[in-house]
Amino acid sequence: MAVGLTAPDALLPVGGVRLAAGAAGIRYRGRDDLLLIELAPGSRSAVALTNNAFAAAPVRICREHRGRVAQSRAWIINSGNANAGTGSPGVLAVRRSCSAVAASLSCAAEAVWPFSTGVIGEALPVERIEATVPELQHRLTEDGWLTAARAIMTTDSVPKGVSRTIDVPGARYTVTGIGKGAGMIRPDMATMLAFVATDAPLSQAAVEQILARAVDASFHCITVDGDTSTNDACALAATGSGELIEIGTVAYRACRDAIIEVCQHLAQAMVRDGEGASKFVTVRVRGARSGEEARKVAFTIAHSPLVKTAWFASDPNWGRVLAAVGRSGLEGLKIEDVDLMIDDVRVLVGGEPAEGYQESDASEVMRRDAFMVTIDLGRGGSDATIWTCDLGHDYVRINAEYRT
Amino acid sequence: MAVGLTAPDALLPVGGVRLAAGAAGIRYRGRDDLLLIELAPGSRSAVALTNNAFAAAPVRICREHRGRVAQSRAWIINSGNANAGTGSPGVLAVRRSCSAVAASLSCAAEAVWPFSTGVIGEALPVERIEATVPELQHRLTEDGWLTAARAIMTTDSVPKGVSRTIDVPGARYTVTGIGKGAGMIRPDMATMLAFVATDAPLSQAAVEQILARAVDASFHCITVDGDTSTNDACALAATGSGELIEIGTVAYRACRDAIIEVCQHLAQAMVRDGEGASKFVTVRVRGARSGEEARKVAFTIAHSPLVKTAWFASDPNWGRVLAAVGRSGLEGLKIEDVDLMIDDVRVLVGGEPAEGYQESDASEVMRRDAFMVTIDLGRGGSDATIWTCDLGHDYVRINAEYRT
Repeated sequence: MAVGLTAPDALLPVGGVRLAAGAAGIRYRGRDDLLLIELAPGSRSAVALTNNAFAAAPVRICREHRGRVAQSRAWIINSGNANAGTGSPGVLAVRRSCSAVAASLSCAAEAVWPFSTGVIGEALPVERIEATVPELQHRLTEDGWLTAARAIMTTDSVPKGVSRTIDVPGARYTVTGIGKGAGMIRPDMATMLAFVATDAPLSQAAVEQILARAVDASFHCITVDGDTSTNDACALAATGSGELIEIGTVAYRACRDAIIEVCQHLAQAMVRDGEGASKFVTVRVRGARSGEEARKVAFTIAHSPLVKTAWFASDPNWGRVLAAVGRSGLEGLKIEDVDLMIDDVRVLVGGEPAEGYQESDASEVMRRDAFMVTIDLGRGGSDATIWTCDLGHDYVRINAEYRT
Repeated sequence: MAVGLTAPDALLPVGGVRLAAGAAGIRYRGRDDLLLIELAPGSRSAVALTNNAFAAAPVRICREHRGRVAQSRAWIINSGNANAGTGSPGVLAVRRSCSAVAASLSCAAEAVWPFSTGVIGEALPVERIEATVPELQHRLTEDGWLTAARAIMTTDSVPKGVSRTIDVPGARYTVTGIGKGAGMIRPDMATMLAFVATDAPLSQAAVEQILARAVDASFHCITVDGDTSTNDACALAATGSGELIEIGTVAYRACRDAIIEVCQHLAQAMVRDGEGASKFVTVRVRGARSGEEARKVAFTIAHSPLVKTAWFASDPNWGRVLAAVGRSGLEGLKIEDVDLMIDDVRVLVGGEPAEGYQESDASEVMRRDAFMVTIDLGRGGSDATIWTCDLGHDYVRINAEYRT
């Protein structure tokens, strides 16, 4: 049960982007598990990939292709199998899959970016992908975004996607993004995939810079359980032609802000759909000496199983929050400087229960399905905001039963 | 339900150490919650305290007392209330508690070391401690160790204690230790308390060095959930008089090894009694470039909720283990060098499933209530071993319901 999240009603088509999804039977039966996204020739694109040292085969090949060919022409994505921990046969499978797409679209294999999500350590049945690609090529359509969002789901309970329009002097552009992910989520990305495209004529440099900024402000600010995946990726394409939008212009800023918004929506949707999540929690740390310090404290809180189980129980057990802050590794931290609020309930002031604080007040706001925890460290002017969820019985149930 | 752990049958008395426990009614009704340990005059002692920046009031006073008076004469321990996050009233409560003990035993208040464990953020009812101390003083006995182990329990399901005898040329000594802890446990210690004493005539320098070594080899090698507490402490006393045992002698080494063994027993008992634990898991990392690197990988595995829930399900989901190793932050890690074993089942060799590997074989050994996961990084000669447990439904139940 996703927290305050429903399937998108509709997603806007983006000129120059065509999609098709189909059932290749990779792992699931009776549902789409293969997605082909085709980009118009000349589109600019960029991709951010997992930092996990044991990157999956598709991530390694995607990195290789990005290095060889400046512009990607197609993205091929499968769900059900991560093609990770599969050694050299896994790499071969990705190459075959990219070649199949290249043959169908008459482009170079290096212009194809591959992505996979699903179970780790099982051989990818690439012959099923090869058999399905030509059929997908015939069904490519600009209206395929919502179907695409469904095809890439694994443990997701809701398809994730959002569209925005961008108004700049003399033009209106569209940006649409889809994503998947519901666990193994934390900074440096996790089993999450996101695909975002716009028809704005952003230059290659603009696409790269916007992607980096957007990933920092969205997928690097969420965590479900502190685990990261071997397959994470976020790709961004700009299809529009004509005079290109360069970094620093008014149009650049409008596009950047809209793309950040789309990525934040997708990132928050992943947390709302976090495995077993019953509450969506925003952790805001203020008064830190640096942004880095603020993030460190925020993630220490967000990763504490004791804090997360207390949230699950609507228990304002502030001692657990303080204990987490206290072990986050900051030099010279003073408890006397620390304030804590839950939504608008002042819990701690100067490290001690606030005057008139009633546990029942805090417990009441925590019964909402979304609330904000604010920690003020009282030692500087920097802050950070991240999004996470609670830890309840369903997390254990889902993760203990995933393969059985 | 502790994993392979039962209450100790008997604990050996240690000459020069007298104990008494009683029901002060601090939080619990009808059970002992206050423990007084008296050390013979002239005993040498040392204490290791939590590194949490928000140390509780008793930890702060204990640190202060240790700095002022070389030798402690008494340890006063209460369960049910951690006296943490309680500001200056909390500090005052500790001072009053130490003064009450000092008055009863006719010693300086600075010779009393205070320890507390239990709920955070509630005022310590120190008047109940003051009222109970004189009664405890009258009942001090060398045979009080097992009663003492029960008095310091909080969420523990089993009292924890162990005795060893030390044979050195011309003498036999005893070492007995008790401990409590069943969650918030990880390196740098957590809500765990341990009290160890020996009648060996160890010098002050020897006591300090042995304590540091023993804590490193025991309490710093365990983790239940990655959380640390504001109250952790391990104290060691040596009561024997006469010619003192100095560092580096044969007798020193015999005492050191026995004390390490006692601390490892207590540390492992805490994991076996880990909140909601159903399996006791030893994580051994070999072939690392340094001990630090090996510990980093071991703790990343042991803290991964995805790995821990797979253990709970007896699921040899080695992809999750590899993903954890891959994100542990080691430079230049190569998946091709990594081997993985679960007990004697070879799962991965060179980063790929071992020849003849059957998932059912691994699953079978994981159904045992204790097993060992061995990772060989294949890049150096250092190793590390830590002890941890799985993450199941009971962890959530216990931690979500602790205060309700």
